[in-house]
Amino acid sequence: SRPFRIAVLAGDGIGKEVMPEGLRVLDVAAAKFGLNLEFKHFDWASCDYYTQTGKMMPDDWKTHLSACDAIYFGAVGMPDIVPDHVSLYGSLLKFRREFDQYINLRPVRLFEGVPCPLANRKPGDIDFFVVRENTEGEYSAVGGKMFEGTDREIVLQESIFTRTGVDRVLKFAFELATRRARKHVTIATKSNGIAISMPYWDERAAEMGKQYPQISTDKQHIDILSARFVLQPDRFDVVVASNLFGDILSDLGPACTGTIGLAPSANLNPDRKFPSLFEPVHGSAPDIYGKKIANPVAMIWSGALMLEYLGLGLPEAEQKPYLDAHNAIVKAIETVLIQGPHTPDLGGKSNTTDMGEAISKLI
Amino acid sequence: SRPFRIAVLAGDGIGKEVMPEGLRVLDVAAAKFGLNLEFKHFDWASCDYYTQTGKMMPDDWKTHLSACDAIYFGAVGMPDIVPDHVSLYGSLLKFRREFDQYINLRPVRLFEGVPCPLANRKPGDIDFFVVRENTEGEYSAVGGKMFEGTDREIVLQESIFTRTGVDRVLKFAFELATRRARKHVTIATKSNGIAISMPYWDERAAEMGKQYPQISTDKQHIDILSARFVLQPDRFDVVVASNLFGDILSDLGPACTGTIGLAPSANLNPDRKFPSLFEPVHGSAPDIYGKKIANPVAMIWSGALMLEYLGLGLPEAEQKPYLDAHNAIVKAIETVLIQGPHTPDLGGKSNTTDMGEAISKLI
Ligand SMILES: CC(C)[C@H](C(=O)O)[C@@H](O)C(=O)O
Ligand SMILES: CC(C)[C@H](C(=O)O)[C@@H](O)C(=O)O
Repeated sequence: SRPFRIAVLAGDGIGKEVMPEGLRVLDVAAAKFGLNLEFKHFDWASCDYYTQTGKMMPDDWKTHLSACDAIYFGAVGMPDIVPDHVSLYGSLLKFRREFDQYINLRPVRLFEGVPCPLANRKPGDIDFFVVRENTEGEYSAVGGKMFEGTDREIVLQESIFTRTGVDRVLKFAFELATRRARKHVTIATKSNGIAISMPYWDERAAEMGKQYPQISTDKQHIDILSARFVLQPDRFDVVVASNLFGDILSDLGPACTGTIGLAPSANLNPDRKFPSLFEPVHGSAPDIYGKKIANPVAMIWSGALMLEYLGLGLPEAEQKPYLDAHNAIVKAIETVLIQGPHTPDLGGKSNTTDMGEAISKLI
Repeated sequence: SRPFRIAVLAGDGIGKEVMPEGLRVLDVAAAKFGLNLEFKHFDWASCDYYTQTGKMMPDDWKTHLSACDAIYFGAVGMPDIVPDHVSLYGSLLKFRREFDQYINLRPVRLFEGVPCPLANRKPGDIDFFVVRENTEGEYSAVGGKMFEGTDREIVLQESIFTRTGVDRVLKFAFELATRRARKHVTIATKSNGIAISMPYWDERAAEMGKQYPQISTDKQHIDILSARFVLQPDRFDVVVASNLFGDILSDLGPACTGTIGLAPSANLNPDRKFPSLFEPVHGSAPDIYGKKIANPVAMIWSGALMLEYLGLGLPEAEQKPYLDAHNAIVKAIETVLIQGPHTPDLGGKSNTTDMGEAISKLI
């Protein structure tokens, strides 16, 4: 079959340090399992590109990326050079919207060998998914100012929820839960304080729940839900959340399992009309950039998710090598997390490359 | 001098169980330190009242409460009976706004004797304040629906930030930091995703920071900030946040110190034009209501904060008994947290009254 074309966008900061390790592992996996991958490297969607050109991407970015089957993405943002909302709205958030990647799927797992910041939790105790709405809600550039520059200054910020947007993410979460052992969906909300959008979210969730009588649900306000991520992380199975709440929970969840350096994410267009995007949950981390100590696992695991997702789009007879490659990469990650080498966030002294090489050798 | 009038609103659920313990302790402290307190009990601002009357409060609620010096508040909410946004907008959130309680001050402390959900943290390691904006921002009932009931349904939710609202909470946080050892303010934001209000918040914070050159600052997006509450809670001193982010952080912080059953809060109108309100951070907890196992510490500690705040409003010569009473209550809480009795959330088998009595005996 024709090769899968993968757009490679390393972006900024540690995105540029972990990307080579992600590619190293994908190369090894491709050779071993006979995958047909073709990489297209782009230097845009970065603040460097912005500094040179005054924009985050060339005008024909969409033509380039639409021709690809998936986007393998590092991290964007250099707030000292370009304001975050400019760099992110000009790249990552644009991809999520224009390619209708309406699901942001983020696994949260406690691995053996990773020091857990929570007391008395062991591998296996924490194993759930955050399903985040990824195109609308609180993430918006709609709004404005009035009486600007005066004491009466007032700023309006719009959150925008659509039935289409809300229903499809809820549906994805319920469907995911049907394939899991516990069959439970937790609905993140804040309908006691945010009085228009969140009661609506609750209503739609209750409607959707009716179609899945075999799935149990609970609804939790985001404040107490965040507290429960720390106090009872073993209770969760599938957590479905709006764009903002999903963003918070999918950093908090991984923090509870030791380090956000491990957490991958899949920005999915489940309709497969547009390329999906795979990226670490961590950002560009300007504070540690240059030291080569960034943990490459999140980048590598994101690559594994990409192979799995690409594979699942093939006729069934052709899926196996992709699914095998996914499993082999996750297995190699598990082994290296137990035996090292480890970057400093895991308590080790190794660097980004050491970890990436160790993982690729195990495949 | 004339007595302080305190409005007592127990509200719903465990609010009704912890309130008697709060009052028990205040009575003992008043007798011991010669405080002049007068309590006015009201049965409204509760879902029971709503069931009977169709509204959360009588029309003249404001006359009653304005005549008081402070409001001692339990918790409101019975979502199975009254939707949360109805009960909360009809009571607590109304008080915060109509009495311009623009600061919600929430201490986060790790106590000796309290099992910490985080590994390797000891008392003294965690000791900071969340300063939450309490009247505007994301908490709003402004917005609406279009194409209702159809597939094109769209819901708009407004967040509203004013210069007055933003500047005064920032100022309070910086002032608080000047009185603390570390002199550090962390600014919670999400300006990379929420593109109008949060960049404005950042701008105002940067402006305010210029007036406090002796205070160091850092700005963190709410996702990674939540992660750092778990990973590096010893790093924080004063954290200033919008209404929603402050809500999340002030449940998450206490969770990291063991139980949200301890966390008090002060809803302050620092101008002292209106009564301030003192309440536990935890809610009405319908799931444990009736069992009498709710931890009364948050309610009792909130009472101590109330005495301190009332005292600070007196001429200096008259402050001492109130400040002494505050200190005595906090000391008694510390002792009981070490030696028991303990409610189940602390790993014990005692009930709400046992703990309340033990604390009051120590004063
Ligand atoms: C009950 C609810 C509206 C309230 C809030 O969100 O402010 C509570 O969670 C709090 O933190 O005081
Ligand atoms: C960089 C930022 C805009 C982004 C987000 O908030 O979605 C990131 O935090 C993430 O979670 O992917």
